[in-house]
Amino acid sequence: MQIAFALYPGFTALDAIGPYQVFTNLPGAEVVVVAERRGRLDDDNDLLHFEVEHTLDEVPTPDVLIVPGGTITRRIAEAGGPLVDWVRAAHEHTTWTTSVCTGALVLGAAGVLDGKTATTHWHAAEHLARYGATSTEQRVVVDGKVVTAAGVSAGIDLALTLVGKLAGDEVAQAIQLGIEYDPQPPYDAGAPSKAPAAIRDLVDQVMTQAEADMWASSPA
Amino acid sequence: MQIAFALYPGFTALDAIGPYQVFTNLPGAEVVVVAERRGRLDDDNDLLHFEVEHTLDEVPTPDVLIVPGGTITRRIAEAGGPLVDWVRAAHEHTTWTTSVCTGALVLGAAGVLDGKTATTHWHAAEHLARYGATSTEQRVVVDGKVVTAAGVSAGIDLALTLVGKLAGDEVAQAIQLGIEYDPQPPYDAGAPSKAPAAIRDLVDQVMTQAEADMWASSPA
Repeated sequence: MQIAFALYPGFTALDAIGPYQVFTNLPGAEVVVVAERRGRLDDDNDLLHFEVEHTLDEVPTPDVLIVPGGTITRRIAEAGGPLVDWVRAAHEHTTWTTSVCTGALVLGAAGVLDGKTATTHWHAAEHLARYGATSTEQRVVVDGKVVTAAGVSAGIDLALTLVGKLAGDEVAQAIQLGIEYDPQPPYDAGAPSKAPAAIRDLVDQVMTQAEADMWASSPA
Repeated sequence: MQIAFALYPGFTALDAIGPYQVFTNLPGAEVVVVAERRGRLDDDNDLLHFEVEHTLDEVPTPDVLIVPGGTITRRIAEAGGPLVDWVRAAHEHTTWTTSVCTGALVLGAAGVLDGKTATTHWHAAEHLARYGATSTEQRVVVDGKVVTAAGVSAGIDLALTLVGKLAGDEVAQAIQLGIEYDPQPPYDAGAPSKAPAAIRDLVDQVMTQAEADMWASSPA
């Protein structure tokens, strides 16, 4: 079983590393990290620098593909390009086609979400409709073989859900225990329906501004 | 406010990336990723390759230091070396000295945990005593300026706890909402007290074997 994490410049690190830490513990899984090009690739904080060793072209038919989100991923999806093309082609052969956060918009641009129910980061939920998807506030949405997760940290829940389907409940529980995933957040503000309205508005503004700033400074 | 993530070959990616995704959203924080040497550094799956740009020596007095754990970190701590020396010296000046998972054993080797209450990955809890620490099963332990987190995923809870102390509850809640940290694990097996005994024993065996295998193949 080949599980491909499709990275790109400006992805959000935790979107990928959460499910990575789950799937790398799955017995029999071959996890591979791919990108359009080999070589250095930075996250959306420009503080983590990854050396990617495998291109999208080298991994055309993964059993599971995972697309993380990022600050300007909505615009990357809209622009199209090799990542979107790869998802479209790979999806024909996958067992599971998945995304975390705004990675869903890449799936959307590849035509994967047409007629599906899906989720993404709450800040980006309105953009699912343009790809023919119905947005929900669920944290992990399984619709056929397409599985989408909400923002950033939701990829851990997605991966454990998928491991349960791929290898059974006991394997998923063992991995949960291995990464000691017994979350105890000190606050209960992790969803827009739970956070105070003023905080939600603030985060909405900050994220809109961050996207605009990063897009303006993007070499693309 | 300077926040230093101290990486080393064989660290566990999520241990660092969980709190990284929290602290990089903290207004006014300068997050810096450091290691003994500049250049390539691999995680304990050998599938993620990081290019590190700053040495420990370049960042001698961070306000917050964070040491992630890893599969062979217990042995790295016992062996001592530049990372342990750096923690010992930097701790004199920190506002908060922190660890995730078996990173606690590095703090211990640096003398930071002597007489403290602390936590680590459940699989390694027995090893805290050799450093004069009292082990607890709490997920995040604050003892003076030393803050330790349980295994792997617990670093997210640690970081949100610290942001609350550094910048107030509202900032912490805003960051929680930004990373949509509203965890909904599909199972409730994330702590040894919650997992079935057979699964706990299995994970214990697998982790012991992984540590032995990785240590045997370590170039050190």
